[in-house]
Amino acid sequence: MSRLLPEINGPADLKDLDAAGLQQLAREIREELINTVAANGGHLAPNLGVVELTLALHRVFQTPRDKIIWDVGHQCYVHKLLTGRRPLFHTLRQSGGLSGFPRRQESAHDAFGTGHSSTSISAALGMALARDLKGGDHAVVAVIGDGAMTGGMAFEAMNHAGHLQKNLIVVLNDNEMSIAPNVGGLAEYLGRLRTDPMYSRGKEEIEQLLRRIPAIGPRVVKVVERLKDSLKYLVVPGMFFEELGFIYLGPIDGHNIQALINVFQQAAATRGPVLVHVRTRKGYGYAPAEANSGVFHGVGPFDVQTGRVIKKDGPPSYTEVFGRTLVELGQSEPEIVAITAAMPAGTGLDHFARAFPERFFDTGIAEQHAVTLGAGLAAEGLKPVVAVYSTFLQRAYDQVLHDVCLQQLPLTLAVDRGGLVGDDGATHHGVFDFAFLRSIPHMVIMAPKDENELRHMLKTALEYPGPAALRYPRGAGTGCPLTGKPAVLPFGRAEVLREGNDITLLAAGSMVSAAVKAAAVLEGLGISAAVINARFVKPLDDETITRYAMRTRRLVTMEEHVLAGGFGSAVLELLGDRGLRNIRVVRMGIPDEFIEHGTRDRLLARCGLTADAAVQNALLMLNAARRTGKKAGAGLPAGGVAGDGRR
Amino acid sequence: MSRLLPEINGPADLKDLDAAGLQQLAREIREELINTVAANGGHLAPNLGVVELTLALHRVFQTPRDKIIWDVGHQCYVHKLLTGRRPLFHTLRQSGGLSGFPRRQESAHDAFGTGHSSTSISAALGMALARDLKGGDHAVVAVIGDGAMTGGMAFEAMNHAGHLQKNLIVVLNDNEMSIAPNVGGLAEYLGRLRTDPMYSRGKEEIEQLLRRIPAIGPRVVKVVERLKDSLKYLVVPGMFFEELGFIYLGPIDGHNIQALINVFQQAAATRGPVLVHVRTRKGYGYAPAEANSGVFHGVGPFDVQTGRVIKKDGPPSYTEVFGRTLVELGQSEPEIVAITAAMPAGTGLDHFARAFPERFFDTGIAEQHAVTLGAGLAAEGLKPVVAVYSTFLQRAYDQVLHDVCLQQLPLTLAVDRGGLVGDDGATHHGVFDFAFLRSIPHMVIMAPKDENELRHMLKTALEYPGPAALRYPRGAGTGCPLTGKPAVLPFGRAEVLREGNDITLLAAGSMVSAAVKAAAVLEGLGISAAVINARFVKPLDDETITRYAMRTRRLVTMEEHVLAGGFGSAVLELLGDRGLRNIRVVRMGIPDEFIEHGTRDRLLARCGLTADAAVQNALLMLNAARRTGKKAGAGLPAGGVAGDGRR
Repeated sequence: MSRLLPEINGPADLKDLDAAGLQQLAREIREELINTVAANGGHLAPNLGVVELTLALHRVFQTPRDKIIWDVGHQCYVHKLLTGRRPLFHTLRQSGGLSGFPRRQESAHDAFGTGHSSTSISAALGMALARDLKGGDHAVVAVIGDGAMTGGMAFEAMNHAGHLQKNLIVVLNDNEMSIAPNVGGLAEYLGRLRTDPMYSRGKEEIEQLLRRIPAIGPRVVKVVERLKDSLKYLVVPGMFFEELGFIYLGPIDGHNIQALINVFQQAAATRGPVLVHVRTRKGYGYAPAEANSGVFHGVGPFDVQTGRVIKKDGPPSYTEVFGRTLVELGQSEPEIVAITAAMPAGTGLDHFARAFPERFFDTGIAEQHAVTLGAGLAAEGLKPVVAVYSTFLQRAYDQVLHDVCLQQLPLTLAVDRGGLVGDDGATHHGVFDFAFLRSIPHMVIMAPKDENELRHMLKTALEYPGPAALRYPRGAGTGCPLTGKPAVLPFGRAEVLREGNDITLLAAGSMVSAAVKAAAVLEGLGISAAVINARFVKPLDDETITRYAMRTRRLVTMEEHVLAGGFGSAVLELLGDRGLRNIRVVRMGIPDEFIEHGTRDRLLARCGLTADAAVQNALLMLNAARRTGKKAGAGLPAGGVAGDGRR
Repeated sequence: MSRLLPEINGPADLKDLDAAGLQQLAREIREELINTVAANGGHLAPNLGVVELTLALHRVFQTPRDKIIWDVGHQCYVHKLLTGRRPLFHTLRQSGGLSGFPRRQESAHDAFGTGHSSTSISAALGMALARDLKGGDHAVVAVIGDGAMTGGMAFEAMNHAGHLQKNLIVVLNDNEMSIAPNVGGLAEYLGRLRTDPMYSRGKEEIEQLLRRIPAIGPRVVKVVERLKDSLKYLVVPGMFFEELGFIYLGPIDGHNIQALINVFQQAAATRGPVLVHVRTRKGYGYAPAEANSGVFHGVGPFDVQTGRVIKKDGPPSYTEVFGRTLVELGQSEPEIVAITAAMPAGTGLDHFARAFPERFFDTGIAEQHAVTLGAGLAAEGLKPVVAVYSTFLQRAYDQVLHDVCLQQLPLTLAVDRGGLVGDDGATHHGVFDFAFLRSIPHMVIMAPKDENELRHMLKTALEYPGPAALRYPRGAGTGCPLTGKPAVLPFGRAEVLREGNDITLLAAGSMVSAAVKAAAVLEGLGISAAVINARFVKPLDDETITRYAMRTRRLVTMEEHVLAGGFGSAVLELLGDRGLRNIRVVRMGIPDEFIEHGTRDRLLARCGLTADAAVQNALLMLNAARRTGKKAGAGLPAGGVAGDGRR
């Protein structure tokens, strides 16, 4: 049989396929997914789980006229394959290639960009309102996982949608998983819905039963009415959603294309908001991914035959070192407890969870609750560590401010994936945290130069009697030795790594190693560059920074963070407040734009965050100083060297 | 009968009161509440609604051993009266007096500080976990309104609590209101719970009925089991909460003290998480507040006899001008739609709601959903305006970044209560918005110098093809004339209000008038001060700021915002990036600490945000320059004059 996938240039091409054709296409799509992700890495298991679901959606609905919004969005690969992007699919997550998430700029079929969890119902409801105001009649469909459904924002949107009663379809893609298995009352409720055999065969028997109930007089009319409601509860399993104002359809086998087509047609014909409950299996159709959907949720390159992930040898990641250090500290400190929002492995807390299961809490995809849960624990004398990716901490900004910092509660934020994350792209870079955290009173912010320093900073944070954040990058550490027991660092003090008289390179966290390299290069050019590892982004080491600023009169600040409001900005504030005017500062950081996906090294280069760029900036400053006789600085290019990507 | 309230020095003193005594005490508490709020202003209606609820809680539970967490917290006055703070109650919301919210620093009986909505269940669950880890056995109680229950964070916590099955009591204080009447599927569900007569008398009749059902063979064992579940649904109205893993008790009449005591005793004796559904009436016991609980939710001083609010004559508020202008623009622009998160009157959107009900959306207390709902509307070509208090926008930081700015969607954020809000204090000041918004790419931020400029800025934002925020203060405008039709302002351009050569006062929004006053004073001292109204906090007017910086070499930046990462910080970045070194900048703003409650004027003075302070800063800079022969600036006090409250 000839291959069908190459003939699918858009959703319209699905209409002519019969059942066998759709089955074949599903197989070919799985092949394409497996082969592409095996080469590029990506979110495999979620996409294998929604092959039939996506085919059925595109068979019933007509995008871009109808709108489909993919919650979180990493399950959109099948959708991309079906909407004209198959020829580019091999560029998935590569620099300049297709994004791993839906993007409005990429295709008219991507109605709304996603990346973070639980936004789809809000966006879909907004689109449904817009449709009705403009007199349209197209369908709006949000596809959301059972994990994302536990995010509070999804509930806010369900509550509002149930009230407004606009035509809106929410497809609950229930695979019993976030990245890790789901937790929460809702998950258990869905479990009951999935397993109760009544839903398939109880209805008739119940009705029969009810017919046998003798009449017992007019006084019980109300009782009988109530009993009808009760009957509805018997035969309509999704009362939880019905109570919110939704019509519930399901549960449906998410790998039966015809059943899916039928239910979507029914949903499309129903007035008001509808929840379609679809049961899928993450990784479906590829044994290694079915067996280990956690690993294959988001995976690097792997061998298709064996399913073995191709591991690069190398030093342990920051995440790994963080996780192991927390276990080490937890052994002697029973007050330490750990919290994740559905990312036990991603944050390295899986080690702690295994060592101290009763002191580990997984809130589900619920960063807001995770932080305030930690505040409650801290208020009662425990030492909570909330480990969270920087980009997802954005969800809990208000909780950090209002529940933790305002009360000066001793809570440690382990902010992982701080900086550019690489392949996941614009929705996932953690490059705003210094700015949003440092404006909050009482907040302490540390950034380690390497994974060994991370260990000591974790200890420092845990001993500090107030809120403290540790911010460290994604991926492998530097491979440095892990020295001694974790020990408290001098509070608010920077570390001078290298003395120098001509210029000071003042770096935060991941940029310290580039500063050290740059200083070595400068030495070769006869320039004496001091290197300071800031360690603390807040409070800054006023004394050390002032001293080196006065000595060298030239500072380069380096941070893997946006320039607006970041670390360099804090340094400018400090120098300004000290009345130090005659200091030239060039700030290196991420420009005021969203950075796309690509390898982390490539993105760093694009933003000019390299040792080379630091050398260039230093040379420009020194040459300008020579040219102008060390007088105030006109003639310097504004902002120094800022990377090839800066406009 | 002698008065009881003066004898209540702590919750223990309640134990001896009989039913009549508790009734009398409730009356005395209402008197005290009414008289104090009539004098000081405050949250009256919510507190009148929870008098019996609070008495019953303190009768059954022993704080501070047992923990009571008041969601939002503005209903904690009765709790304060009963926990030793009656002698200070006349200082409520006054500078240096009792806070209008629970505060851990204020009393051991305040287990957790609140102010923003929907945090209580998370904090309570954290405390319950801490209790169990430490081997305690006290009760933990969260008291949350039906409005706050629609905030997504509350759902996240309910979901987690239902899963963990720890002992935890959630009291749902159901008064059918947030500040405005509630919206949402959940509100309608609670309405059905409240009004269905079955809940009080159906149980026995149903059981009778069920006994009459004939046996119909073994095949239907499952059916009968299911029917039992169904029966539970019949007689246990709160299945929505039961599905999440809670035991539901209620609904209970929230003004019947004995019924409340009984149900709290039952809850205390129940294992696992319990939801107690209490029906209360906002404003109960004071006719004007019952009749108009919206006005008496948070109210200024009023006349006790008539219930008439004592209005100061004066210019319309920024809120009012915003609301009316939006109606004016909405008349000719059908694409404009407006969104509030449960604050139609507070944000001034009530005007728009009346004029264009079909284009107005109230999401309930759900800022996250509100912003992304707006993003969905914007994606489909409408012009959404999300009006929200600055402090509550903190809840939607990630949505602004990820859903709006990343997609460059044309959405207007009307950020009300930007700056110090006065009486509500630390939880409510809107002093972080410049910092958290300006680090986001694509975001435009404007701040009007007066209510007339606000009108033109609103038009400017609505015409701008991307995200734009308007940030304006609480309270009365300047009384300036409202000129012409709202017109688009030159994009990214500041307004030079006064020429000058010695120094430049560069102010944002509410501080412009202080800058103008200061310049007049300086003129009297023979000093020529330029005044610039920044208008745009992002993008800054590079050209104008650079020109005046070069001309006067001395800048004072003025903002009603924290100094860390704010407007002044952005000015430092700009000057640094232009390579302008020899400029002295003093930044005036709010220091790096949380500011307590008090009148706005007093707080501004405390932060040194006055015309006088600007004059002092200017004089210091000029004297220092004279002393040092206009050379670089040692000898200047760091940071200039910074208010009497700065440490």
